[in-house]
Amino acid sequence: MSPPSTAVVYDHHGPPDTVTRLTEIPPVKITENDVCVRMLAAPINPADINKIEGVYPDRSPLPTVGGGEGVGIVHSVGSAVKALSPGDLVIRFPYIQGSWQTYIVQEQSMWHKIDKSTPIEYAATVSVNPVSALRMLDEFVTLKPGDSIVQNGATSITGQCIIQLARLRGIHSINIIRDKPGSDEVKERLMKLGADKVFTEKELDVKRVKNLLGDISEPILGLNCVGGNAATLVVKFLKQGGTMVTYGGMSKEPVTVSTSYFIFKDITLKGFWLQEWKLDQAKYRDWIDYLLALARAGKLKYEMEMVPFNDFHTALEKAMGKQGSRGKQVLKF
Amino acid sequence: MSPPSTAVVYDHHGPPDTVTRLTEIPPVKITENDVCVRMLAAPINPADINKIEGVYPDRSPLPTVGGGEGVGIVHSVGSAVKALSPGDLVIRFPYIQGSWQTYIVQEQSMWHKIDKSTPIEYAATVSVNPVSALRMLDEFVTLKPGDSIVQNGATSITGQCIIQLARLRGIHSINIIRDKPGSDEVKERLMKLGADKVFTEKELDVKRVKNLLGDISEPILGLNCVGGNAATLVVKFLKQGGTMVTYGGMSKEPVTVSTSYFIFKDITLKGFWLQEWKLDQAKYRDWIDYLLALARAGKLKYEMEMVPFNDFHTALEKAMGKQGSRGKQVLKF
Repeated sequence: MSPPSTAVVYDHHGPPDTVTRLTEIPPVKITENDVCVRMLAAPINPADINKIEGVYPDRSPLPTVGGGEGVGIVHSVGSAVKALSPGDLVIRFPYIQGSWQTYIVQEQSMWHKIDKSTPIEYAATVSVNPVSALRMLDEFVTLKPGDSIVQNGATSITGQCIIQLARLRGIHSINIIRDKPGSDEVKERLMKLGADKVFTEKELDVKRVKNLLGDISEPILGLNCVGGNAATLVVKFLKQGGTMVTYGGMSKEPVTVSTSYFIFKDITLKGFWLQEWKLDQAKYRDWIDYLLALARAGKLKYEMEMVPFNDFHTALEKAMGKQGSRGKQVLKF
Repeated sequence: MSPPSTAVVYDHHGPPDTVTRLTEIPPVKITENDVCVRMLAAPINPADINKIEGVYPDRSPLPTVGGGEGVGIVHSVGSAVKALSPGDLVIRFPYIQGSWQTYIVQEQSMWHKIDKSTPIEYAATVSVNPVSALRMLDEFVTLKPGDSIVQNGATSITGQCIIQLARLRGIHSINIIRDKPGSDEVKERLMKLGADKVFTEKELDVKRVKNLLGDISEPILGLNCVGGNAATLVVKFLKQGGTMVTYGGMSKEPVTVSTSYFIFKDITLKGFWLQEWKLDQAKYRDWIDYLLALARAGKLKYEMEMVPFNDFHTALEKAMGKQGSRGKQVLKF
C-alpha cells in the first residue's frame, strides 16, 4: 500500500479557487506493474485551470485530483517493475490528471526516469511547454539554419523555449509582445535568450510590417497563442506559402484572416494540441531527454516561482492572473 | 498577318465600366509557332474585373486587352505548327490576359484543341470555374464515396460544378446559400443538380449545425468563396481534422475562426488560386477534356447568358452585379 496522499481535489467544475480543496486520500494498493512516487514538484498549467473550469474538451469523471505534469522520487515499486527503483527521479507523462498530490501510484509506463542532477523546477515543467515548443518547430514546416519564425505571446514559457530552441538551430525568431509598461525590459530579456527581433503590438501598427525585418528572412512559420490582432500580425509577417500554427488563445479573441492571404499568399492555418502527440511514447521520452539535457547545460532557461504546497490557493490565484502577471507557478510538495 | 481585331482595351486601372473601351487593333504578324484564332466566345470572370480595377496581385503592363479564357476557331497557323489546323475548335489557356477580342495570335502551346461538338458556352467557360471545382475536390483531402463536403456560395458556377462533380463520385454535398427571396427555388435547382442538403445562412443559426446532417457523414472538406459568417458556418460543419479551402471572398469580410477549432478540432485552413496550378499543362489539358466530356454528356450543367460583343458594356454591368444577380456573362463575338 502507498502512504496516504495529500491532494488538491475538486468535486464539480467551476471557478478553480472556490471548487478546489486540499484533502487526504487514503492509501492505495500497489499492484505488480505499479510505481508509487513521492511527488516533489508540479506546475499549474493553463490546461489544468481550464479542466477545473470544465471548459476543456475532455473531462475526467469527478471527483478528481487536479494537475497534469510533475516530478517525484520513486518511493516503492510493484513486483514486476524492473526499470525503476526506489530513489529514482521520475517525471510523469502529463496525459492524465492527478499530479497535485504528495504520493501517486501509477502503472510504470506513466513514469520516465531522468538524470538526478536535473534542476527540479525544470523536471516539473518540461513535458508540456518545452515539448510543445520543440514539436511546433519540427512538425509543421522544415526549418533550416537561416530560416526564420514569428511568434506572439513570446514571453510565455513556450515562447521563451521557442526563442532558445530556434537559436540553437540557427533559426531567427521575430517576437511580438503586448504593449505594457516595462516592455523595454522584456525586450532586453528576450534578446538575451536569443531573440532576433522583439516588437510590441503597437510598434507593428505600420503599413508594411515586413519593412521591419532588416536582413532577417521572411518567416515561413508563425506561432500564435494569443488570437485577435496579435494573430493577424503573425500572418502579416509570413512569407508566401507560410504556415501559422495556433496553440492558444490568451486574448479570447478569434483568429481573423482576410481572404487574400489565403488565395494570393497561400497561407495555411493549423492548430497544435500536445495531447494529440501522446501516442508515440518512445519519441516523447527522447524529446524530454533532449530538453532536460539543454536545461542542465543552461541552454534552456525560463523563470518559475516555486510555491509550498500549503500555499496552493495563493499559487492558483497567481496562475489565474489575479495578482497581475506572474511567473509559472510550481507547487513544491 | 492576322486580320485586324476588335478588342476591349483599358489604358489605366479603375472602375471597369468607365476605363474600358472597344477599339480596333491593327493586324499582327504570325510567326512560325503562332496560331491565329477567330474568337467565338469569352466569359467575364470576377478575376477579369479585379484585374481592370487594379486590385489583382499580378498586373499586366498597360494598355492591355481584358479577359482571360475563351474559345475560338483556328483561322491560320504558322509554318511550324503541326498539331492545329484552320477550322479546329480551340480553347485558350487563361493564364495571360487578352481574350476579349475578335482575333488572337498566340504561340501554339497556349491553345487546346477540343471536340467540335462541344457546346460553345461550355468551351468558353470550362478552364477557370469548372477546373477550379475539380482541383479543389482533388488537391486537399482524399475523398472517397460516402464522404461529404460542405460549401458556401453554392449557386456560383464553381459551386454548381462542385455539387455535380461530387455527386458523380458518390460524395455528398452540403450547400450554404444566402438568405434571399426565392431561396426555395434555388434549393430545388441545386437539389436537382445533385446537392444532398441546401441551407440558407439563417437556417444555420442554430446551436449545433451538425444536428442538421441527418445520415450524411460529417464533411472533411469545406470550400469557402464568401468569407464572414458564411465561412464560419463551413468551419462549424467540418469534422475533426477537416480542411477548409478559401477560393473567394464575395462578402468582402475576412475569415474568422475561434481558437478552439484549431486546437481541439484540428481544423486546417488553406487557400486555392487556380493560377498556381498553371505549370503542369499536360494535366490541365486532361482536366479540360474530362470536364468537357461531362458537359457534352449533359452531366455538367450551369447557366450562362450569352451577350453579343457589341453589348459589352451591358454585360460588364451585369457581371459587376449592377443589375442584380445575373448568370455568368459570356461574350459572343
